[in-house]
Amino acid sequence: MVAKTRFGIIGGGAVGGLYGCLLAKVGFDVHFLLRSDADHVRQHGWKIETPLGDFQLAGTKVHVSADTMPPCDYTVIALKTTQNRMLQELLPAPTSEGGRVLVLQNGLDVERDAAAIVGSDRVLGGCCFLCSNKVGPGHIRHLDQGRILVGDYSRAGGQVSQHASMLCDELVMAGIDAKVTADLGTTRWKKLMWNIPFNGLSVVLDASTRDLMDNDESCALARSLMIEVHQAAAACNSIIDEKAIETTLDVTRKMVPYDSSMRLDYLNHRPMELEAIFDKPIRSAEQHGFDMPQVRMLYRALLFLNAQRSKP
Amino acid sequence: MVAKTRFGIIGGGAVGGLYGCLLAKVGFDVHFLLRSDADHVRQHGWKIETPLGDFQLAGTKVHVSADTMPPCDYTVIALKTTQNRMLQELLPAPTSEGGRVLVLQNGLDVERDAAAIVGSDRVLGGCCFLCSNKVGPGHIRHLDQGRILVGDYSRAGGQVSQHASMLCDELVMAGIDAKVTADLGTTRWKKLMWNIPFNGLSVVLDASTRDLMDNDESCALARSLMIEVHQAAAACNSIIDEKAIETTLDVTRKMVPYDSSMRLDYLNHRPMELEAIFDKPIRSAEQHGFDMPQVRMLYRALLFLNAQRSKP
Repeated sequence: MVAKTRFGIIGGGAVGGLYGCLLAKVGFDVHFLLRSDADHVRQHGWKIETPLGDFQLAGTKVHVSADTMPPCDYTVIALKTTQNRMLQELLPAPTSEGGRVLVLQNGLDVERDAAAIVGSDRVLGGCCFLCSNKVGPGHIRHLDQGRILVGDYSRAGGQVSQHASMLCDELVMAGIDAKVTADLGTTRWKKLMWNIPFNGLSVVLDASTRDLMDNDESCALARSLMIEVHQAAAACNSIIDEKAIETTLDVTRKMVPYDSSMRLDYLNHRPMELEAIFDKPIRSAEQHGFDMPQVRMLYRALLFLNAQRSKP
Repeated sequence: MVAKTRFGIIGGGAVGGLYGCLLAKVGFDVHFLLRSDADHVRQHGWKIETPLGDFQLAGTKVHVSADTMPPCDYTVIALKTTQNRMLQELLPAPTSEGGRVLVLQNGLDVERDAAAIVGSDRVLGGCCFLCSNKVGPGHIRHLDQGRILVGDYSRAGGQVSQHASMLCDELVMAGIDAKVTADLGTTRWKKLMWNIPFNGLSVVLDASTRDLMDNDESCALARSLMIEVHQAAAACNSIIDEKAIETTLDVTRKMVPYDSSMRLDYLNHRPMELEAIFDKPIRSAEQHGFDMPQVRMLYRALLFLNAQRSKP
């Protein structure tokens, strides 16, 4: 008998809850590290709504401390990047026997924090093209999309490692639309072509993706920001097919009306992922001699709103 | 006995109410054209709060139709530019004997509508650098600043006409801080250096001038927009001293906390002056080969918010 692949899922939100449960459902050995939702999930299990077929899942292994987690083959980071300072404490136990880390976060170079702890070679990154929200404790509503692109953190535009391929195969076994990418950096920029306009504008203009796509002016705004991100990516040697601009707008137009994670964070008074999604790309482009005036403008507006909200 | 100069004041808001009452107070023959506030002003008079000295004023001449207005030496347009389509109906009576029109509106080339009716030679423009709000019917609260720069619409960068000088002298007699400008177009661009960032950002970021100046990010946003307006002005042959950027920011920093007219219009579900303050400058710069990406971004955001608010 072959030992089952063991996954440690750090974070039980829209991403970790969904993918972790899909993996557990087909029999992988899945260990969730949860905080506030741990008791609820232990008592009532998970409730997953997804176009793949709704399901409930009881009896999953739930931890409230990383110290009780067993060594895992893959430790999946599904926290917000704003919580990355906790990784120092969370990663040692599940990665103690040499397992890999899969970073499922938005933004640029978000693998860096994990790499500093376990070493770049053991870090994989995944970009989720996914509409999913946590709607209650242990209750995930996956609305649309769902692809994960998995790549190696330490290989830029080279071959895909065996580990990335194997992981991808296992995700596919769980019914997840996973593919490998040979250039994780470029894939991250491609995801930023969505995140920067739609996360940012949804907060500043207080709007869903549907609201933004239904109006010519906000559509033009989104396109204009997207073009700037596309150019910044190219300046950083991440060449993305220009068609991606219209494709991304089309996909968003056809999406269910969706509240971006940043908008939900803002509305729920949680920190927004501004460093990963705005600051790092702006700086990276700057280091390559490319200015992002429009994205910087949006970033500054978000920083202002963030500061206003934190006022006593 | 010399006949008193007669002023027709079209609009009794923050600008027309204040300046009209200051003129009436020192004895000029002032005729107000009002709409919703006419009855209140007839019964209770005006209440003017101003750093120049609060005062009340009863018995001013109030009209509800332009047809009852006598021919005026100066007809002052103190309506919002969004109401300019009414000028066709409002201007003929008070200007019937060859009097001048003074356009006290924000934005670029806002004199054009009046000029089309009475001819360019009879049109003067005034830029008000003024913090004033209408707080109730016939009740104006002038908070800070107050300068008017008066110039000829038909002379670009030439001499000041005798009419502009005489009008300026009369405004000064009423205690108004009025000066002439030999280049009205450049003065309008200079005012736009304030209006574009502070009107626009106050709506999109839901903030007073104080909120915007108290935060480094929104300050940087305002400065960055202001620089773009300054450059656009230069492209349109309106050369403004670069020092105006820091001076304008300084003045705003020292101002009383102020809700811009555009913010008040937005909050009170009135149309915003987007054409005069955003569309015309962007187009004008474009015609001179200068692109305004940041201002256009702000403009699009405002158009989106405007459309969202008009939804059923």
